[in-house]
Amino acid sequence: MLDRVKKTEKENSTELKAEIKTLREQLLAKGMLLRDKGLPVIVLVEGWAAAGKGSLINELISEIDPRFYNVVSPVLLPEKEERYPYLYQYASAIPENGKIMFYDSGWMEGAVRKYLRRDITKTEYKKRIRAVNEFERQLRDGGYLILKLFLHISKEEQKKRLSALKGSYETEWRVTEEDIWQHREYKAFEEAYDDFLDKTNSCIPWHVLNGEQKRSSVRDALELLIDLIDKGLEKGRYVGKPFEEEFPLLKMQRLSEVDLSPVVEEEEYKEELKSLQKRLAELHNTIYRKKIPVILCYEGWDAAGKGGNIRRVARPLDPRGFDVMPIASPEPHELNRQYLWRFWTRLPRSGHVCIFDRTWYGRVMVERIEGFCKEDDWKRAYQEINEFERQLTDWGAVVLKFWIHIDQDTQLARFNDRQSTPEKQWKLTEEDWRNREKWPQYEEAVDEMLQKTSTENAPWYIIESNDKKYARIRTLKIIVKALERACEEQVLR
Amino acid sequence: MLDRVKKTEKENSTELKAEIKTLREQLLAKGMLLRDKGLPVIVLVEGWAAAGKGSLINELISEIDPRFYNVVSPVLLPEKEERYPYLYQYASAIPENGKIMFYDSGWMEGAVRKYLRRDITKTEYKKRIRAVNEFERQLRDGGYLILKLFLHISKEEQKKRLSALKGSYETEWRVTEEDIWQHREYKAFEEAYDDFLDKTNSCIPWHVLNGEQKRSSVRDALELLIDLIDKGLEKGRYVGKPFEEEFPLLKMQRLSEVDLSPVVEEEEYKEELKSLQKRLAELHNTIYRKKIPVILCYEGWDAAGKGGNIRRVARPLDPRGFDVMPIASPEPHELNRQYLWRFWTRLPRSGHVCIFDRTWYGRVMVERIEGFCKEDDWKRAYQEINEFERQLTDWGAVVLKFWIHIDQDTQLARFNDRQSTPEKQWKLTEEDWRNREKWPQYEEAVDEMLQKTSTENAPWYIIESNDKKYARIRTLKIIVKALERACEEQVLR
Repeated sequence: MLDRVKKTEKENSTELKAEIKTLREQLLAKGMLLRDKGLPVIVLVEGWAAAGKGSLINELISEIDPRFYNVVSPVLLPEKEERYPYLYQYASAIPENGKIMFYDSGWMEGAVRKYLRRDITKTEYKKRIRAVNEFERQLRDGGYLILKLFLHISKEEQKKRLSALKGSYETEWRVTEEDIWQHREYKAFEEAYDDFLDKTNSCIPWHVLNGEQKRSSVRDALELLIDLIDKGLEKGRYVGKPFEEEFPLLKMQRLSEVDLSPVVEEEEYKEELKSLQKRLAELHNTIYRKKIPVILCYEGWDAAGKGGNIRRVARPLDPRGFDVMPIASPEPHELNRQYLWRFWTRLPRSGHVCIFDRTWYGRVMVERIEGFCKEDDWKRAYQEINEFERQLTDWGAVVLKFWIHIDQDTQLARFNDRQSTPEKQWKLTEEDWRNREKWPQYEEAVDEMLQKTSTENAPWYIIESNDKKYARIRTLKIIVKALERACEEQVLR
Repeated sequence: MLDRVKKTEKENSTELKAEIKTLREQLLAKGMLLRDKGLPVIVLVEGWAAAGKGSLINELISEIDPRFYNVVSPVLLPEKEERYPYLYQYASAIPENGKIMFYDSGWMEGAVRKYLRRDITKTEYKKRIRAVNEFERQLRDGGYLILKLFLHISKEEQKKRLSALKGSYETEWRVTEEDIWQHREYKAFEEAYDDFLDKTNSCIPWHVLNGEQKRSSVRDALELLIDLIDKGLEKGRYVGKPFEEEFPLLKMQRLSEVDLSPVVEEEEYKEELKSLQKRLAELHNTIYRKKIPVILCYEGWDAAGKGGNIRRVARPLDPRGFDVMPIASPEPHELNRQYLWRFWTRLPRSGHVCIFDRTWYGRVMVERIEGFCKEDDWKRAYQEINEFERQLTDWGAVVLKFWIHIDQDTQLARFNDRQSTPEKQWKLTEEDWRNREKWPQYEEAVDEMLQKTSTENAPWYIIESNDKKYARIRTLKIIVKALERACEEQVLR
């Protein structure tokens, strides 16, 4: 793709300057329209070191009102790169509805540079390419307008610019070891960039700009951005259609087939609980040292015993290394972004355990049933969630998902008990009763969810919880076993 | 204070176990009451290495519903410590209303350990002590319930515990170089802790617990916490009274006395603008290298020309090193925390420039006039803001505050112009007209704000903006001069 870069003769003409002025005024006016329509825009600016990414962005934003845009420079956060999944810092920075976010370089380097540095293998590189395509598609399907720019300069031009920067006391610090390495390896980078652009071009296309002609590239970028916004404004918010990749799914029982009779005796319970918690505490040490991220997802019927189950798992863990994340209804600033954003931003650092008390599966349960999202949205979510979880396990995370299961009679008995016990009344709300009436719809949704999202890398477990103690022991056993396996497989980093 | 630690004879008695069980049940019930009343609670657990801070917290939370609490371990974020003000990571982690936040060690180490390591001078240490007292008082005055615990163990006990940890493969990694250094320097630490506890005891008192008697300290902590919550529930949300420290204030003109006639000729404007922007770009490089944080605050009348002024300042800056933060009305999750929280969390990293388009001064302007906070709240805010800004400048930040000033006739002319120009209509809202009617109240509030918060370290400048061009040049000159001085004073870190 890099050979397709344009050249123009009129780089210094007055027409070009006038064109830019007009385009800037147009862009300023678009800001308000974007806000009115609640359309979020992402402008990704990638390119060579010293190609002028920062200064291009500065030219683009120079007339926009600060209320309508933000700039993010993710390259500055190496700490995040090491302790979080590949796309974490980019996914955490997506704009809210009605705003433009400029990425001063983004996810390209995390694939290309890492691969050239041999920090990641060919296989990992391919996974990153896949993750990028998934990430961009998910955002587009969620209504984001995305513009991807690559600022290209030749090796000679890069040499000239780096030398100029090195030549002045004020700017020499801007030339990093990395830049010099890139310049020396220009040829290898060129091939690698070309490969990356090529493989990430099908869903959201790239635009290669000529970084050697600063004014023309500003004009081109402005035109492309205005065109993108115009089309978005015309069509309104894009809602993607379900897209089915063949995920290797595990066969799951239907809820109605689950035998809920298993119980555990008090004596055995105490003994097993103690020994499993002891083992879990030991494993937590190893997890921490080996920097394995652990994500435990709890879903289940109201009054099924999620809370007590979570407490038994959390008890032996060192509070420095785990978090329980209770997930309530999204807040306004969360509703203003793609629905997975509030989970991306809550991911644990590597080596930490995060227990989600309710999860991103709200999308295909409560949001589906209560109509909080469109049909296309929740139908697409199975795929999106499978992709999201695969990105987590590609990062090295242990992801386990528990459906805490009871039958309707047990739920009724527990509701009545809560109602008649003063210390427990706060646990029971009107909403619980309303949800109970919708048991059949929920059961259908849960069955579909279990069928469509139980993958080998992130499996679902239906936990029989008519006997809460049995459920706790079973959950702990599953966790201990999975962590033991992960600790064996993973070498100390 | 450390000599006041209690000893009990009945560490292993059944009564003690039963007591703890009862207290835990009580604490569980408090969670819901806290939520109903919207009271936020902070539990700070400090103490010696290997004193058992983590395990104490785990005992305290073991029965609380995860929806009611969080644990934060700020010690894990050294990167933040280096690039942000001293209290940044703690202030960013305060709980929202109705939740308990447990700090697994907090602001003590950042003063004591840094001082013992000679990373900070005696003077800086004193400033940190002052900042801690201000921080805790501001939270208390804002309705936070605060419990401060120090877990004490003797040198012999610490030795025993560190050896035990070192003795096992599973736990040896937990003993850090820092811990060994602390143990060797036990005496010096003991004196330093005592000094810190003593100097931070007057506003929110410390409680020293005996870390050698694990069960008793759990019981004591539970009792203290329940007592704190009970008192808070009884009295309701505490609202602090104004508190006047003698800040050295700069004499400010009243707005009505300001001569708004200065203008600049077009020719001179263009020339000056160009040369000032060029100088600012150079200074931005130095700022970045010297890691000087820069905070520029814009307030002013509607249509005074803030936006255009900000754009001229932002234009020469490298987007990698600055942010414009437009401040709108607080969102629900922001209203649920102390009012400075949303500004703490938006502070720039050292070496970066942050331009606030409206600021924390909303508290003493719109919130005062519209009654969005109580009278005591905004009256207290002058002091709180002076303290907050002093903490920023103690960190090394350049803080400049601009009141962009016009007269009523000029505002009316600009409103009319906006109304009759289609591209500008979005800039004018009903609210602008309503605010205009309240000009006298705002003028009174602004005058009081300028009188009470213009300090030598964070001065206000009234910028005459009837001629916007004059205003831009004047602002740029002030910024350039302040940055030149800062760059001279500060050595390269």
